[in-house]
Amino acid sequence: MQAIFDLFNQVPRATWSLASSLRDSGAKEARVVENPDSVDFDANQFDIRHRIDLRGVLYPQERSALLILNQELRLSREFLQALWDSSGICVCADGGANRLHDFFIDERERAQHLPAYIVGDLDSLRDDVRAFYEGHGVVVLEQSTQYASDLMKSVQVSSLHFNHEPFRACARKGRVDTHNGVGEMIAARQAAGWTPEPLRLLVLNAIDGRFDLTVHSVAQMYTLREQHPYLTLFYITPTDLLFLVPADGTCVSYTSDMRAAMFGCCGLLPLGGSCTLRRTYGLKWDVCAWDTSIAAGRVSSSNYLVGDTGCYVDADRDILMSIELRWNGVDRWYTAAQLSNHSSHEC
Amino acid sequence: MQAIFDLFNQVPRATWSLASSLRDSGAKEARVVENPDSVDFDANQFDIRHRIDLRGVLYPQERSALLILNQELRLSREFLQALWDSSGICVCADGGANRLHDFFIDERERAQHLPAYIVGDLDSLRDDVRAFYEGHGVVVLEQSTQYASDLMKSVQVSSLHFNHEPFRACARKGRVDTHNGVGEMIAARQAAGWTPEPLRLLVLNAIDGRFDLTVHSVAQMYTLREQHPYLTLFYITPTDLLFLVPADGTCVSYTSDMRAAMFGCCGLLPLGGSCTLRRTYGLKWDVCAWDTSIAAGRVSSSNYLVGDTGCYVDADRDILMSIELRWNGVDRWYTAAQLSNHSSHEC
Repeated sequence: MQAIFDLFNQVPRATWSLASSLRDSGAKEARVVENPDSVDFDANQFDIRHRIDLRGVLYPQERSALLILNQELRLSREFLQALWDSSGICVCADGGANRLHDFFIDERERAQHLPAYIVGDLDSLRDDVRAFYEGHGVVVLEQSTQYASDLMKSVQVSSLHFNHEPFRACARKGRVDTHNGVGEMIAARQAAGWTPEPLRLLVLNAIDGRFDLTVHSVAQMYTLREQHPYLTLFYITPTDLLFLVPADGTCVSYTSDMRAAMFGCCGLLPLGGSCTLRRTYGLKWDVCAWDTSIAAGRVSSSNYLVGDTGCYVDADRDILMSIELRWNGVDRWYTAAQLSNHSSHEC
Repeated sequence: MQAIFDLFNQVPRATWSLASSLRDSGAKEARVVENPDSVDFDANQFDIRHRIDLRGVLYPQERSALLILNQELRLSREFLQALWDSSGICVCADGGANRLHDFFIDERERAQHLPAYIVGDLDSLRDDVRAFYEGHGVVVLEQSTQYASDLMKSVQVSSLHFNHEPFRACARKGRVDTHNGVGEMIAARQAAGWTPEPLRLLVLNAIDGRFDLTVHSVAQMYTLREQHPYLTLFYITPTDLLFLVPADGTCVSYTSDMRAAMFGCCGLLPLGGSCTLRRTYGLKWDVCAWDTSIAAGRVSSSNYLVGDTGCYVDADRDILMSIELRWNGVDRWYTAAQLSNHSSHEC
C-alpha cells in the first residue's frame, strides 16, 4: 500500500491528534486527527463561502458542456455515455474530434454523438473526421490565434453558446472571424459588464497526457477561476475527478450513495503554491493549521472522504482536490441516479 | 496543436523579444526570445553550479538502480530491456513486483529479470509472486513502518545496497528489522557523517497513476534532493522523462543524436512554487527574468530543446523539467548506443 507518509510526511497512521513534528503556521497549533470511517457532516456547522456539489458532475444540466481535448479517450463506453447524457452540449478541441470519432466503432453511434462545435487552429483535425462531422451539421470553428490554447478556445465557445444568444447563429453561418473571433466576442462581453449564469464544464483529456500539458491544464484551472468565475470546472481523468477548492471555506457535498459507490482516495494538492489548511472536516485524516507544500514534501495524499454527505476545506489559497473515481461504481451510481428523480439539490 | 499560449501565457508564437505583458521580476526586464530550431551550446559560456547528463539515463552504470512502483507498466518490451540493461540492480516496491512478474509472459523471461529486492509493507505483494521470486533467491524485505512510502523505502534500500557493504549480507540473512530496519540503518549512516558517492535512480510508475500519488511523487523528488543529495533521480512515464533542475545554474547535457531521435516537447514546471527563471539558453523559447507560477497561469510548456548538445537553466528555486520521450527514437538510439563504445562523458 501507499503508506501514510504520503499523507502527512511525518505522521503515522495511528496518530490521533498532535503531531509534534508539524510546524505551527501561526497562533494555532498544527494538528492532524484520524477520524472513523464515517462521520456526520452538517454544513451548518461551518463558515461556508463557496459550495461545490459533486452531484452536479453527473446529474443532467442544460447549462453544461462536455469538452474533449486531443488525447486518447481512456474511459468506458458507459461512462462516456453518462457524461454525454448529463451535458447540454459537447465541444471538441481540434484533434479531440478525432478521438471522439474513433471512440465509436460504427457510423450510427458516431452520428448519435455529435459535438455541437469543433474549435481550434485545426492543424490536428483529420480531413475525414472534419468531413464526417461537417456532413452531419457540426459547426467547425477555425480560431488560428496562438494566444489561446485549445482548452481555452473550447471554454470560450461553451461560454458564448450559453451566455450570448446571437453567437449560435453567427457560428452556424460562418460569421465568426477565423483568427480570434471567439476571444474577441468574449472580451467585448466582458467589457460590457457581462455577468453570466453559472455554467458547468466537464473536461476530458486535460490531465492524462504529456506531463507539461498536465501542469499547463492545472495552471489553466487557476486562470479560468480568475477570468471566468461563473464556471464550475471539473477535469475527469482515467483515475480521478479534479477540481479547484476556493480559499476561505468551501463545502464539498455529495450523497452517501456516491461516496460508497464511486469514491476512492482523495488528495488536497497545493499546486498553486504552498498554503495553510486552516481546517478540514470530513476527511479520514483531518488537519488544523497545517502548512502544505510540494517543495517541503508535505502533501495530503492517500486521504479519504469520511464525511457522510460532504466535507469542509478552509485553506488560505485555492487548492486542487483530487478524488479517485471507481468506474464500476460510477456506472452503478449513474444507472441508479438515472432511474430516480433528479431533484434539485443544495449543499 | 497546443498553442503557444501554453508556453508563455500572453506571448505569441512569433514573438522574438520583449513581451510587454510580462511582469518584470526585478532590475532586469522580462524577455522571451524565439530561437532557431538548432543553436550551438557551449557550456563554457555559463556559470554552472550543477550538471545533469541525460546520456546517464540510459548508459549502463554500475551504481544505479531501476525502481518499479505498483502501477501498470506501460512501456515497450524493448525499452524496459534498455532500462534493465543500464541499471546495476532492480528494486520493486511492494506490488511493483506483481507488475514486473506479469509484464513477462513466460517463466524463462521472468527468471532472467529478477529484482535484487522487493521492499514495502508487502500488503500488495501477491503470494504467487512472492513465492516465485523467493524461489529464485530474490531478497524480500518487509518494512512495515507507515512513516515512509514504498518509494522512499526502495530508495533507502538502493542507497544501502551501494553505499553500505554489510547491508547486502544482512538483507540476505533476514537480519534487517522488519519494522523500520532500513530507515534506521540510513539514519545511523547519516548520523555518522555519511558522504555517499553519486547514485542514479530510474523510477517507473511514480507519475502515471492516481493524481494525488503523482503529486506526492513530485513532492518526494524535492524531499529526496534535500535528504539524499548524492542521488540523481529520474522519473520515467509513458510519455516523459522528469527530473529536478537545481536552482542557481544547471547545465542539462545530451548528444545531438539523442535530441534528434528521442526528445519531443519539454516544460519547466514550477511545482515547488512560483519562481523566477533568471535565464535559460537552448530552448526554442528562451526567457530572461521571467516569473513562472501555476497559480498565475504562467508556465513554460510545449517548449523544445534546440541547444545542439545541451541547455542551461538558471532559476531561483529548484524547478521540475519534463522532456517528452519518443519511444521509437529511444529504442533506435539505445540500440545504436549499445553498438558503440560507452565512452565516459562530461557536460
